[in-house]
Amino acid sequence: MATYFEQLKARLAQVSDLQRAAAVLEWDQQVNMPHGGSNARARQLATLHELAHTLFVAEVTGDWLEHAAAEVAAMSPDSNEACLVRVTRRDYDRLRRVPGSLVAERAQVTAEAFQAWEQARAESRFAMFAPHLQRVLDVTSRSAEALGYEDCIYDALLDQFEPEMRTKDVTGIFAELRNGLVRLVRAISDHGRPIDDSVLSRRFPEAAQWDFGLTVLEDMGFDTACGRQDRSAHPFTTSFSPHDVRITTRINPNQLHSGLFSTVHEGGHALYDQGISMELDRTPLCDGASFSLHESQSRLWENIVARSHCFWTHYLPRLTEYFPQQLADQTVDSFYRAINRVEPSLIRVEADEVTYNLHIFLRFELEQELLEGRLKVSELPEAWNAKMESYLGILPGDDATGVLQDVHWSSGSFGYFPSYALGNLLAVQFYNQALQDMPELPDQIAQGYLHPLRAWLRDHIHIHGKKMMPDQLVRQVTGQPLSAAPFLTYLETKYAEIYGL
Amino acid sequence: MATYFEQLKARLAQVSDLQRAAAVLEWDQQVNMPHGGSNARARQLATLHELAHTLFVAEVTGDWLEHAAAEVAAMSPDSNEACLVRVTRRDYDRLRRVPGSLVAERAQVTAEAFQAWEQARAESRFAMFAPHLQRVLDVTSRSAEALGYEDCIYDALLDQFEPEMRTKDVTGIFAELRNGLVRLVRAISDHGRPIDDSVLSRRFPEAAQWDFGLTVLEDMGFDTACGRQDRSAHPFTTSFSPHDVRITTRINPNQLHSGLFSTVHEGGHALYDQGISMELDRTPLCDGASFSLHESQSRLWENIVARSHCFWTHYLPRLTEYFPQQLADQTVDSFYRAINRVEPSLIRVEADEVTYNLHIFLRFELEQELLEGRLKVSELPEAWNAKMESYLGILPGDDATGVLQDVHWSSGSFGYFPSYALGNLLAVQFYNQALQDMPELPDQIAQGYLHPLRAWLRDHIHIHGKKMMPDQLVRQVTGQPLSAAPFLTYLETKYAEIYGL
Repeated sequence: MATYFEQLKARLAQVSDLQRAAAVLEWDQQVNMPHGGSNARARQLATLHELAHTLFVAEVTGDWLEHAAAEVAAMSPDSNEACLVRVTRRDYDRLRRVPGSLVAERAQVTAEAFQAWEQARAESRFAMFAPHLQRVLDVTSRSAEALGYEDCIYDALLDQFEPEMRTKDVTGIFAELRNGLVRLVRAISDHGRPIDDSVLSRRFPEAAQWDFGLTVLEDMGFDTACGRQDRSAHPFTTSFSPHDVRITTRINPNQLHSGLFSTVHEGGHALYDQGISMELDRTPLCDGASFSLHESQSRLWENIVARSHCFWTHYLPRLTEYFPQQLADQTVDSFYRAINRVEPSLIRVEADEVTYNLHIFLRFELEQELLEGRLKVSELPEAWNAKMESYLGILPGDDATGVLQDVHWSSGSFGYFPSYALGNLLAVQFYNQALQDMPELPDQIAQGYLHPLRAWLRDHIHIHGKKMMPDQLVRQVTGQPLSAAPFLTYLETKYAEIYGL
Repeated sequence: MATYFEQLKARLAQVSDLQRAAAVLEWDQQVNMPHGGSNARARQLATLHELAHTLFVAEVTGDWLEHAAAEVAAMSPDSNEACLVRVTRRDYDRLRRVPGSLVAERAQVTAEAFQAWEQARAESRFAMFAPHLQRVLDVTSRSAEALGYEDCIYDALLDQFEPEMRTKDVTGIFAELRNGLVRLVRAISDHGRPIDDSVLSRRFPEAAQWDFGLTVLEDMGFDTACGRQDRSAHPFTTSFSPHDVRITTRINPNQLHSGLFSTVHEGGHALYDQGISMELDRTPLCDGASFSLHESQSRLWENIVARSHCFWTHYLPRLTEYFPQQLADQTVDSFYRAINRVEPSLIRVEADEVTYNLHIFLRFELEQELLEGRLKVSELPEAWNAKMESYLGILPGDDATGVLQDVHWSSGSFGYFPSYALGNLLAVQFYNQALQDMPELPDQIAQGYLHPLRAWLRDHIHIHGKKMMPDQLVRQVTGQPLSAAPFLTYLETKYAEIYGL
């Protein structure tokens, strides 16, 4: 006779299988699927998401959950069992509020919108995407209303990515961040010595870029027996289990940094997904603690590690083996400066560390305006451009490099962008702590010995999956709450040295 | 208010979505999945198949079905609606007999067995696969018993692939076939003039083979906006909708015929799947009428078309553009003879047209012996080798080229092999009819103009999907039932000319 807890766990495993299956279909959609397959795929995804939702929010799941809570009451609150019941209770109470039909509609609408976005972006025509975006926005609003919120509709969306965080918290942190960033950007543009990064735009054949990227991934500890890398228009990471984690990248033969840092970025995400304890597999705990936690891992590897001087002490000679002519004139200093050049630019995912968060502020504000009805979809390109000018002082030449650049809105991921900025902050907080625990870290990185850092991240963060609330995990690892100050200090120190401020 | 028919159709669409999703996961498993993903994938597939089964055989589906039958009673029996109710009724009554837990167990066991088979085959060690095969056999037997049968257990399995066909029917057809084939093989080996096919073993770089294969696929009418080709260990075709059909091939740089004919073979399957009426999408009618019907399409293209003299009249010059040195000494006659050389060989999928069916007889007999308990799994390699010697006069040097060569048993597809032989027979019957309708067909093929044949096949066969029972479809298209005689006549004529008999 199975306990209630076991029955609950079996149901959650079924739900997880359906969600992972949907993830396979979504991965295929972005990596392999011929264009003709889009309608059928949209319906298949709608069915999978609707069934997962229906099974999860079923009355009987709630009954098992209640009885399971009693069964695990005597166990340690840190036990897998107690955490599973606690996290499931939170998710259950939230998702019970969203009707299954809305979940299915959302899956269908976003799958179609994704296809439309891809084409609209290829043709750089926002008008092709606009009616789809309107539908996504409608279904997102209805979901948010169903989920409920205290202060503002954006809270309901933000909570999906950053459990227990409120829009006003983000607004506060962003305000502090904005002041520091504006100061630093101005200092660099007024007093910084110029940096020549033209080396990155030389011709770097794609196959060699691909191969070098793979060697870095393996050095980072990405397990290729439990994952693979492919190409897609918009790089992403997805997990079908900790033993099957897929990343994608894009490679531009005239932009060395584009593919390289995207590979390392997604590799950071992948290490998190591969590092979650197998004991948590097929449960809602087999996930990152939050999207910002996940992003902290990718940004830590991409920026703090792979844009550091010590990293290139080891890797520039390696990279030069792949591109002897293109890099013949480079020193670690010159290359380090080139990859850290600060310049306002159009594309978020290719922005430097200093200006990156300005792209997030723009999206955070536009999303709130759209959801609160203060901005119409048709007005979005204009509003986008106005904010680009105000935050970054530049204007996109077309929709493809402007309002159409990100996949997120097509997939209904409103409320997601703040996680990127918060992830940047956490990355510094975690790295500072790792450095305190292992002062030899920079020396190890300078020898291409990346495993100690990965092991530290695994033991302190990855292994726990989603057992803790993000705030609890951050405090447990660093002794401090999420904060903008360490990030600003990190930037000011690094860029004062690079730009001779 | 939805009619019962509409409710039924919505349920069937959900089931179809789950099955198609499983097909995506299975495709990924064979094409992309890293080894570490196998356990999770097995569980995901088990969940998808179990849910599809549970939804299909639910009590309420039966209620809707009964009421829907009344609703469509006045419609033409050929209408999509009447066919859907009829076919669903047949499937429903059969599958109601299999418990969902057995379906899930079967999915899990076969997914694991597939992984084991891949590894066992790579290492050529049957013993690694044996315990998995035993489990597959057990779960298959239990499924067959649950399905029920009149004469013998094999009937229950055969019916899954060849609706309404009995083991004794197959035995009768195979007996006629065996006599004719044995006679022909003997005549060729005793009196045939020798054929030199060494040209096929020259060095043919893989990329050029791939590219040539794609041009033939496109000439055949394979729509690359609604499908794609990849590589896998064992070539196969799968469909996620008529607008997303995937084929795989394998390419051997020292065996031109291996990849070429596998591409055309799977292309023939793909044309069937792409040709089914979109009106039937997301219903049980969006499928081939039977596995032999499906196989008839692949074999028609592979053998009757792509191993014909007229085909190479057009394509040898094209192929020579890809391989100018390797084919410099070839004429259409010499090449035609090389690709039609008859010789007993170890690997079924690479066997010539004449000896191919002997491989099927062997499997048909072994499967019955295993299922009836007359043969133990541990005795299988020995029994395999004995039958190879008896039917083909040769012995495999190892398990990989013997008992481990086919994927089918690992996926629990007992009862499937006869469809290959029956498909060979049907291919000739269909082609003869097409030729009667369009006497200009060989001239068109000789000009590389393959579309008329594809259009004929689409209009007469593909478009109908699974609306008719196979026997009904065959009689409607050819005016005759399935029969061995046309196939034997085709072989005798073709090979008498080639071998100067």
